Amino acid sequence: MKDNQIPKATARRLPLYYRYLRILNNAGKTKVSSTELSEAVQVDSATIRRDFSYFGELGKRGYGYDVESLMNFFAKTLSDDQMTNVALIGVGNLGSALLKYKFHQSNSIRVSAAFDVNPDIVGRIVDGIPVYPISDLKEQIAIQQIEIAILTVPAQQAQDTFNTLVDAGIKGVLNFTPARIVTKDNVLVQNVDLTNELQTLIYFLHSTNPTEKK
Amino acid sequence: MKDNQIPKATARRLPLYYRYLRILNNAGKTKVSSTELSEAVQVDSATIRRDFSYFGELGKRGYGYDVESLMNFFAKTLSDDQMTNVALIGVGNLGSALLKYKFHQSNSIRVSAAFDVNPDIVGRIVDGIPVYPISDLKEQIAIQQIEIAILTVPAQQAQDTFNTLVDAGIKGVLNFTPARIVTKDNVLVQNVDLTNELQTLIYFLHSTNPTEKK
Repeated sequence: MKDNQIPKATARRLPLYYRYLRILNNAGKTKVSSTELSEAVQVDSATIRRDFSYFGELGKRGYGYDVESLMNFFAKTLSDDQMTNVALIGVGNLGSALLKYKFHQSNSIRVSAAFDVNPDIVGRIVDGIPVYPISDLKEQIAIQQIEIAILTVPAQQAQDTFNTLVDAGIKGVLNFTPARIVTKDNVLVQNVDLTNELQTLIYFLHSTNPTEKK
Repeated sequence: MKDNQIPKATARRLPLYYRYLRILNNAGKTKVSSTELSEAVQVDSATIRRDFSYFGELGKRGYGYDVESLMNFFAKTLSDDQMTNVALIGVGNLGSALLKYKFHQSNSIRVSAAFDVNPDIVGRIVDGIPVYPISDLKEQIAIQQIEIAILTVPAQQAQDTFNTLVDAGIKGVLNFTPARIVTKDNVLVQNVDLTNELQTLIYFLHSTNPTEKK
Protein backbone atom coordinates (compact mmCIF):
# COMPACT_ATOMS: atom_id res chain seq x y z
CA MET A 1 0.00 0.00 0.00
CA LYS A 2 1.40 3.36 -0.96
CA ASP A 3 -0.37 5.86 1.24
CA ASN A 4 1.42 8.80 -0.26
CA GLN A 5 -0.22 8.22 -3.62
CA ILE A 6 -3.80 8.25 -2.39
CA PRO A 7 -5.77 11.36 -3.35
CA LYS A 8 -7.86 13.05 -0.72
CA ALA A 9 -11.07 12.39 -2.66
CA THR A 10 -10.33 8.66 -2.50
CA ALA A 11 -9.50 8.82 1.21
CA ARG A 12 -12.85 10.51 1.84
CA ARG A 13 -14.70 7.62 0.23
CA LEU A 14 -12.97 4.87 2.24
CA PRO A 15 -15.26 5.32 5.27
CA LEU A 16 -18.28 4.89 2.96
CA TYR A 17 -16.99 1.60 1.56
CA TYR A 18 -16.09 0.41 5.03
CA ARG A 19 -19.48 1.25 6.50
CA TYR A 20 -21.37 -0.60 3.76
CA LEU A 21 -19.10 -3.65 4.08
CA ARG A 22 -19.82 -3.77 7.80
CA ILE A 23 -23.56 -3.67 7.12
CA LEU A 24 -23.21 -6.53 4.63
CA ASN A 25 -21.02 -8.55 6.98
CA ASN A 26 -23.47 -8.09 9.85
CA ALA A 27 -26.23 -9.30 7.50
CA GLY A 28 -24.22 -12.49 6.89
CA LYS A 29 -23.35 -11.70 3.28
CA THR A 30 -20.02 -13.08 2.07
CA LYS A 31 -19.71 -11.66 -1.44
CA VAL A 32 -20.62 -8.36 -3.05
CA SER A 33 -20.53 -7.40 -6.72
CA SER A 34 -19.10 -4.10 -7.82
CA THR A 35 -22.55 -3.11 -9.11
CA GLU A 36 -24.16 -3.70 -5.70
CA LEU A 37 -21.38 -1.77 -4.00
CA SER A 38 -21.75 1.07 -6.47
CA GLU A 39 -25.50 1.36 -5.93
CA ALA A 40 -25.27 1.21 -2.16
CA VAL A 41 -22.61 3.87 -1.73
CA GLN A 42 -23.82 6.00 -4.67
CA VAL A 43 -20.39 6.13 -6.27
CA ASP A 44 -19.98 5.01 -9.89
CA SER A 45 -18.13 1.74 -10.40
CA ALA A 46 -15.28 3.28 -12.41
CA THR A 47 -14.47 5.51 -9.44
CA ILE A 48 -14.68 2.56 -7.05
CA ARG A 49 -12.30 0.52 -9.21
CA ARG A 50 -9.87 3.44 -9.38
CA ASP A 51 -10.09 3.98 -5.61
CA PHE A 52 -9.47 0.31 -4.92
CA SER A 53 -6.59 0.16 -7.37
CA TYR A 54 -4.53 2.36 -5.05
CA PHE A 55 -4.50 -0.55 -2.63
CA GLY A 56 -3.55 -3.27 -5.11
CA GLU A 57 -5.69 -6.32 -5.88
CA LEU A 58 -8.77 -6.19 -3.69
CA GLY A 59 -11.09 -8.35 -5.77
CA LYS A 60 -11.29 -10.49 -8.87
CA ARG A 61 -12.92 -9.40 -12.10
CA GLY A 62 -16.18 -11.26 -12.61
CA TYR A 63 -16.22 -12.56 -9.06
CA GLY A 64 -16.81 -9.45 -7.01
CA TYR A 65 -15.41 -8.83 -3.56
CA ASP A 66 -15.09 -10.99 -0.50
CA VAL A 67 -17.01 -9.02 2.13
CA GLU A 68 -15.14 -10.04 5.27
CA SER A 69 -11.60 -9.68 3.96
CA LEU A 70 -12.38 -6.36 2.29
CA MET A 71 -14.04 -5.12 5.49
CA ASN A 72 -11.02 -6.15 7.54
CA PHE A 73 -8.71 -4.50 5.07
CA PHE A 74 -10.55 -1.17 5.38
CA ALA A 75 -10.81 -1.52 9.16
CA LYS A 76 -7.04 -1.71 9.27
CA THR A 77 -6.57 1.05 6.70
CA LEU A 78 -8.87 3.37 8.65
CA SER A 79 -7.36 2.32 12.01
CA ASP A 80 -10.82 1.13 13.01
CA ASP A 81 -9.26 -2.01 14.48
CA GLN A 82 -7.97 0.08 17.38
CA MET A 83 -9.60 2.51 19.78
CA THR A 84 -9.22 6.20 18.94
CA ASN A 85 -9.89 8.67 21.74
CA VAL A 86 -10.93 12.13 20.59
CA ALA A 87 -11.21 15.39 22.51
CA LEU A 88 -13.90 17.99 21.99
CA ILE A 89 -13.10 21.61 22.75
CA GLY A 90 -16.01 23.98 23.34
CA VAL A 91 -19.25 22.57 24.76
CA GLY A 92 -21.65 25.14 23.29
CA ASN A 93 -24.69 24.36 21.13
CA LEU A 94 -22.87 22.51 18.41
CA GLY A 95 -20.35 20.96 20.83
CA SER A 96 -23.16 19.61 23.02
CA ALA A 97 -24.90 18.14 19.99
CA LEU A 98 -21.67 16.44 18.93
CA LEU A 99 -21.23 14.98 22.44
CA LYS A 100 -24.60 13.29 21.91
CA TYR A 101 -23.79 12.35 18.33
CA LYS A 102 -23.42 8.66 17.71
CA PHE A 103 -20.33 8.03 15.66
CA HIS A 104 -22.56 5.38 14.21
CA GLN A 105 -20.53 3.37 11.77
CA SER A 106 -17.51 3.16 13.96
CA ASN A 107 -17.14 1.21 17.17
CA SER A 108 -13.73 2.56 17.74
CA ILE A 109 -13.97 6.37 17.68
CA ARG A 110 -14.95 7.81 21.02
CA VAL A 111 -15.05 11.35 22.39
CA SER A 112 -13.39 10.60 25.70
CA ALA A 113 -12.86 14.12 27.01
CA ALA A 114 -14.48 17.52 26.55
CA PHE A 115 -12.97 20.86 27.51
CA ASP A 116 -14.60 24.19 28.21
CA VAL A 117 -14.16 27.46 30.11
CA ASN A 118 -17.71 27.66 31.46
CA PRO A 119 -17.58 27.04 35.27
CA ASP A 120 -21.18 25.76 35.17
CA ILE A 121 -20.18 22.65 33.24
CA VAL A 122 -16.47 22.21 33.95
CA GLY A 123 -15.99 19.31 36.36
CA ARG A 124 -19.34 17.81 35.39
CA ILE A 125 -20.12 14.77 33.26
CA VAL A 126 -22.23 15.71 30.22
CA ASP A 127 -23.82 12.87 28.26
CA GLY A 128 -21.37 10.48 29.82
CA ILE A 129 -18.32 12.54 28.90
CA PRO A 130 -16.24 14.42 31.50
CA VAL A 131 -15.82 18.16 30.89
CA TYR A 132 -12.37 19.39 31.97
CA PRO A 133 -11.01 22.92 32.28
CA ILE A 134 -8.69 23.99 29.46
CA SER A 135 -5.86 23.98 32.02
CA ASP A 136 -6.12 20.16 32.16
CA LEU A 137 -5.75 19.83 28.38
CA LYS A 138 -2.09 18.82 28.27
CA GLU A 139 -2.42 16.34 31.11
CA GLN A 140 -5.57 14.63 29.82
CA ILE A 141 -4.34 14.48 26.23
CA ALA A 142 -1.22 12.70 27.45
CA ILE A 143 -3.05 10.32 29.81
CA GLN A 144 -5.76 9.42 27.29
CA GLN A 145 -3.33 9.30 24.34
CA ILE A 146 -5.52 11.69 22.36
CA GLU A 147 -4.21 12.86 18.99
CA ILE A 148 -7.37 14.34 17.51
CA ALA A 149 -9.55 17.23 18.66
CA ILE A 150 -12.93 18.49 17.49
CA LEU A 151 -12.93 22.28 17.64
CA THR A 152 -16.30 23.88 18.41
CA VAL A 153 -15.22 27.07 20.18
CA PRO A 154 -16.35 30.55 19.05
CA ALA A 155 -14.55 31.62 15.85
CA GLN A 156 -12.59 34.39 17.62
CA GLN A 157 -11.01 31.81 19.94
CA ALA A 158 -10.25 29.27 17.21
CA GLN A 159 -6.63 30.14 16.44
CA ASP A 160 -5.55 30.58 20.07
CA THR A 161 -7.24 27.34 21.06
CA PHE A 162 -5.63 25.59 18.12
CA ASN A 163 -2.19 26.79 19.23
CA THR A 164 -2.87 25.48 22.73
CA LEU A 165 -3.93 22.13 21.28
CA VAL A 166 -0.77 21.84 19.21
CA ASP A 167 1.37 22.66 22.26
CA ALA A 168 -0.49 19.95 24.16
CA GLY A 169 0.41 17.38 21.49
CA ILE A 170 -2.68 17.23 19.25
CA LYS A 171 -1.87 16.05 15.70
CA GLY A 172 -5.15 16.58 13.87
CA VAL A 173 -8.08 18.97 14.29
CA LEU A 174 -11.60 18.80 12.91
CA ASN A 175 -12.43 22.50 12.73
CA PHE A 176 -16.14 23.32 12.98
CA THR A 177 -15.51 27.04 13.38
CA PRO A 178 -15.66 29.36 10.37
CA ALA A 179 -12.12 30.55 11.16
CA ARG A 180 -9.39 29.58 8.70
CA ILE A 181 -6.73 28.25 11.01
CA VAL A 182 -3.05 28.78 10.29
CA THR A 183 -1.52 25.44 11.11
CA LYS A 184 1.95 24.62 12.41
CA ASP A 185 4.16 21.62 13.20
CA ASN A 186 2.44 19.70 10.35
CA VAL A 187 -0.76 19.40 12.34
CA LEU A 188 -3.62 18.44 10.03
CA VAL A 189 -6.69 20.67 9.95
CA GLN A 190 -9.90 19.45 8.35
CA ASN A 191 -12.59 22.10 8.02
CA VAL A 192 -16.30 21.44 8.35
CA ASP A 193 -17.95 24.75 7.61
CA LEU A 194 -21.71 24.51 7.63
CA THR A 195 -22.34 27.88 6.00
CA ASN A 196 -19.93 27.00 3.22
CA GLU A 197 -21.77 23.74 2.66
CA LEU A 198 -25.06 25.59 2.30
CA GLN A 199 -23.60 28.29 0.07
CA THR A 200 -21.97 25.69 -2.18
CA LEU A 201 -25.28 23.85 -2.46
CA ILE A 202 -27.08 27.08 -3.36
CA TYR A 203 -24.40 27.84 -5.92
CA PHE A 204 -24.80 24.45 -7.60
CA LEU A 205 -28.55 24.76 -7.51
CA HIS A 206 -28.46 28.07 -9.33
CA SER A 207 -25.77 27.14 -11.83
CA THR A 208 -27.47 25.35 -14.66
CA ASN A 209 -25.16 22.44 -15.24
CA PRO A 210 -22.71 21.53 -12.48
CA THR A 211 -19.78 19.41 -13.60
CA GLU A 212 -20.11 16.99 -10.72
CA LYS A 213 -23.01 16.37 -8.40
CA LYS A 214 -21.46 13.93 -5.98
CA MET B 1 -19.18 33.10 -16.83
CA LYS B 2 -19.49 29.46 -17.78
CA ASP B 3 -20.96 27.74 -14.74
CA ASN B 4 -20.83 24.34 -16.31
CA GLN B 5 -17.04 24.40 -16.40
CA ILE B 6 -16.49 25.10 -12.72
CA PRO B 7 -15.16 22.15 -10.75
CA LYS B 8 -16.76 21.29 -7.45
CA ALA B 9 -13.51 21.94 -5.56
CA THR B 10 -13.49 25.50 -6.91
CA ALA B 11 -17.15 26.02 -6.03
CA ARG B 12 -16.43 24.93 -2.48
CA ARG B 13 -13.79 27.62 -2.12
CA LEU B 14 -15.98 30.48 -3.37
CA PRO B 15 -17.67 30.98 0.03
CA LEU B 16 -14.21 31.32 1.63
CA TYR B 17 -13.14 34.03 -0.77
CA TYR B 18 -16.44 35.78 -0.35
CA ARG B 19 -16.32 35.72 3.44
CA TYR B 20 -12.83 37.18 3.57
CA LEU B 21 -13.72 39.92 1.08
CA ARG B 22 -16.68 40.90 3.25
CA ILE B 23 -14.39 41.13 6.28
CA LEU B 24 -11.98 43.35 4.33
CA ASN B 25 -14.77 45.52 2.99
CA ASN B 26 -16.25 45.97 6.46
CA ALA B 27 -12.79 47.01 7.64
CA GLY B 28 -12.74 49.72 4.97
CA LYS B 29 -10.06 48.10 2.84
CA THR B 30 -10.32 48.76 -0.90
CA LYS B 31 -7.55 46.60 -2.37
CA VAL B 32 -6.14 43.20 -1.56
CA SER B 33 -3.07 41.49 -2.99
CA SER B 34 -3.18 37.86 -4.04
CA THR B 35 -0.60 37.09 -1.33
CA GLU B 36 -2.80 38.56 1.41
CA LEU B 37 -5.82 36.70 0.07
CA SER B 38 -3.84 33.47 -0.07
CA GLU B 39 -2.65 33.77 3.53
CA ALA B 40 -6.07 34.69 4.88
CA VAL B 41 -8.00 31.86 3.27
CA GLN B 42 -5.13 29.35 3.53
CA VAL B 43 -5.28 28.45 -0.14
CA ASP B 44 -2.12 28.73 -2.26
CA SER B 45 -2.08 31.56 -4.78
CA ALA B 46 -1.80 29.29 -7.84
CA THR B 47 -5.08 27.64 -6.83
CA ILE B 48 -6.71 31.03 -6.24
CA ARG B 49 -5.63 32.26 -9.68
CA ARG B 50 -6.94 29.09 -11.30
CA ASP B 51 -10.23 29.37 -9.40
CA PHE B 52 -10.65 33.00 -10.40
CA SER B 53 -9.77 32.26 -14.03
CA TYR B 54 -13.04 30.35 -14.41
CA PHE B 55 -14.81 33.67 -14.01
CA GLY B 56 -12.70 35.67 -16.45
CA GLU B 57 -10.68 38.76 -15.53
CA LEU B 58 -11.21 39.47 -11.85
CA GLY B 59 -8.05 41.43 -11.14
CA LYS B 60 -4.98 42.90 -12.72
CA ARG B 61 -1.52 41.39 -12.44
CA GLY B 62 0.65 43.48 -10.12
CA TYR B 63 -2.31 45.48 -8.87
CA GLY B 64 -4.23 42.97 -6.83
CA TYR B 65 -7.98 42.89 -6.48
CA ASP B 66 -10.55 45.59 -5.91
CA VAL B 67 -12.26 44.45 -2.71
CA GLU B 68 -15.73 45.85 -3.24
CA SER B 69 -16.23 44.79 -6.84
CA LEU B 70 -14.84 41.32 -6.17
CA MET B 71 -17.06 40.99 -3.11
CA ASN B 72 -20.10 42.04 -5.11
CA PHE B 73 -19.18 39.63 -7.86
CA PHE B 74 -19.06 36.70 -5.42
CA ALA B 75 -22.22 37.87 -3.68
CA LYS B 76 -24.01 37.58 -7.00
CA THR B 77 -22.30 34.31 -7.93
CA LEU B 78 -23.28 32.76 -4.60
CA SER B 79 -26.80 34.27 -4.74
CA ASP B 80 -25.98 36.07 -1.51
CA ASP B 81 -27.56 39.23 -2.94
CA GLN B 82 -30.98 37.65 -2.43
CA MET B 83 -32.68 35.99 0.54
CA THR B 84 -32.59 32.20 0.61
CA ASN B 85 -35.06 30.47 2.89
CA VAL B 86 -34.02 27.02 4.04
CA ALA B 87 -36.03 24.29 5.78
CA LEU B 88 -34.67 22.01 8.49
CA ILE B 89 -36.19 18.55 8.86
CA GLY B 90 -35.71 16.75 12.16
CA VAL B 91 -35.31 18.83 15.33
CA GLY B 92 -33.24 16.33 17.38
CA ASN B 93 -29.87 17.04 18.99
CA LEU B 94 -28.06 18.03 15.84
CA GLY B 95 -31.13 19.70 14.32
CA SER B 96 -31.62 21.84 17.43
CA ALA B 97 -27.96 22.88 17.39
CA LEU B 98 -28.29 23.88 13.74
CA LEU B 99 -31.38 25.96 14.51
CA LYS B 100 -29.18 27.93 16.92
CA TYR B 101 -26.26 27.99 14.48
CA LYS B 102 -25.41 31.40 13.11
CA PHE B 103 -24.91 31.17 9.41
CA HIS B 104 -22.26 33.72 10.20
CA GLN B 105 -20.77 34.89 6.98
CA SER B 106 -24.05 35.19 5.21
CA ASN B 107 -26.80 37.70 5.84
CA SER B 108 -29.02 36.04 3.34
CA ILE B 109 -29.34 32.39 4.32
CA ARG B 110 -32.02 31.80 6.89
CA VAL B 111 -33.64 28.68 8.29
CA SER B 112 -37.23 29.88 8.06
CA ALA B 113 -39.08 26.67 8.88
CA ALA B 114 -38.38 23.49 10.83
CA PHE B 115 -40.34 20.26 10.59
CA ASP B 116 -40.65 17.37 13.01
CA VAL B 117 -42.95 14.54 14.08
CA ASN B 118 -42.59 15.10 17.84
CA PRO B 119 -45.92 16.46 19.19
CA ASP B 120 -44.04 18.15 22.07
CA ILE B 121 -42.38 20.64 19.73
CA VAL B 122 -44.62 20.75 16.65
CA GLY B 123 -46.59 23.99 16.65
CA ARG B 124 -44.02 25.69 18.88
CA ILE B 125 -41.40 28.27 18.06
CA VAL B 126 -37.88 27.00 18.82
CA ASP B 127 -35.06 29.55 18.83
CA GLY B 128 -37.22 31.90 16.82
CA ILE B 129 -38.07 29.31 14.16
CA PRO B 130 -41.54 27.76 13.81
CA VAL B 131 -41.68 23.94 13.95
CA TYR B 132 -44.35 22.53 11.62
CA PRO B 133 -45.71 19.00 11.29
CA ILE B 134 -44.41 17.07 8.27
CA SER B 135 -47.93 17.25 6.84
CA ASP B 136 -47.44 21.00 6.35
CA LEU B 137 -44.25 20.50 4.35
CA LYS B 138 -45.66 20.98 0.87
CA GLU B 139 -47.69 24.02 1.84
CA GLN B 140 -44.90 25.82 3.72
CA ILE B 141 -42.29 25.06 1.09
CA ALA B 142 -44.55 26.63 -1.53
CA ILE B 143 -45.48 29.67 0.60
CA GLN B 144 -41.92 30.38 1.73
CA GLN B 145 -40.39 29.54 -1.67
CA ILE B 146 -37.98 27.11 -0.07
CA GLU B 147 -35.74 25.11 -2.41
CA ILE B 148 -33.20 23.76 0.08
CA ALA B 149 -33.62 21.48 3.07
CA ILE B 150 -31.21 20.45 5.84
CA LEU B 151 -31.84 16.81 6.68
CA THR B 152 -31.21 15.86 10.33
CA VAL B 153 -33.67 12.99 10.78
CA PRO B 154 -32.61 9.52 12.02
CA ALA B 155 -30.75 7.58 9.30
CA GLN B 156 -33.53 5.03 8.88
CA GLN B 157 -35.97 7.80 7.94
CA ALA B 158 -33.58 9.60 5.60
CA GLN B 159 -34.63 8.14 2.24
CA ASP B 160 -38.39 8.33 2.91
CA THR B 161 -38.09 11.88 4.15
CA PHE B 162 -35.98 12.77 1.13
CA ASN B 163 -38.66 11.39 -1.20
CA THR B 164 -41.29 13.47 0.61
CA LEU B 165 -39.08 16.55 0.24
CA VAL B 166 -38.66 15.99 -3.48
CA ASP B 167 -42.41 15.56 -3.93
CA ALA B 168 -42.90 18.82 -2.03
CA GLY B 169 -40.62 20.64 -4.49
CA ILE B 170 -37.23 20.73 -2.74
CA LYS B 171 -34.32 21.03 -5.20
CA GLY B 172 -31.27 20.56 -2.95
CA VAL B 173 -30.63 18.69 0.31
CA LEU B 174 -27.81 19.03 2.81
CA ASN B 175 -27.75 15.51 4.23
CA PHE B 176 -26.41 15.24 7.77
CA THR B 177 -27.54 11.63 8.16
CA PRO B 178 -25.10 8.77 7.50
CA ALA B 179 -27.55 7.34 4.95
CA ARG B 180 -26.48 7.41 1.31
CA ILE B 181 -29.56 8.84 -0.35
CA VAL B 182 -30.65 7.70 -3.78
CA THR B 183 -31.64 10.92 -5.48
CA LYS B 184 -34.25 11.54 -8.17
CA ASP B 185 -35.55 14.34 -10.41
CA ASN B 186 -32.02 15.82 -10.49
CA VAL B 187 -32.28 16.94 -6.88
CA LEU B 188 -28.81 17.75 -5.53
CA VAL B 189 -27.66 15.97 -2.39
CA GLN B 190 -24.65 17.23 -0.48
CA ASN B 191 -23.46 14.93 2.31
CA VAL B 192 -22.01 16.13 5.59
CA ASP B 193 -21.04 12.95 7.41
CA LEU B 194 -19.33 13.69 10.68
CA THR B 195 -18.04 10.17 11.27
CA ASN B 196 -16.56 10.13 7.77
CA GLU B 197 -14.81 13.42 8.49
CA LEU B 198 -13.24 11.98 11.62
CA GLN B 199 -12.28 8.71 9.96
CA THR B 200 -10.69 10.55 7.05
CA LEU B 201 -8.73 12.72 9.46
CA ILE B 202 -7.54 9.64 11.35
CA TYR B 203 -6.58 8.03 8.07
CA PHE B 204 -4.49 11.01 7.00
CA LEU B 205 -2.91 11.21 10.41
CA HIS B 206 -1.77 7.61 10.25
CA SER B 207 -0.66 7.63 6.64
CA THR B 208 2.83 9.02 6.57
CA ASN B 209 2.71 11.37 3.65
CA PRO B 210 -0.71 12.48 2.44
CA THR B 211 -0.77 13.96 -1.06
CA GLU B 212 -2.88 16.91 -0.06
CA LYS B 213 -3.56 18.32 3.36
CA LYS B 214 -6.09 20.99 2.56
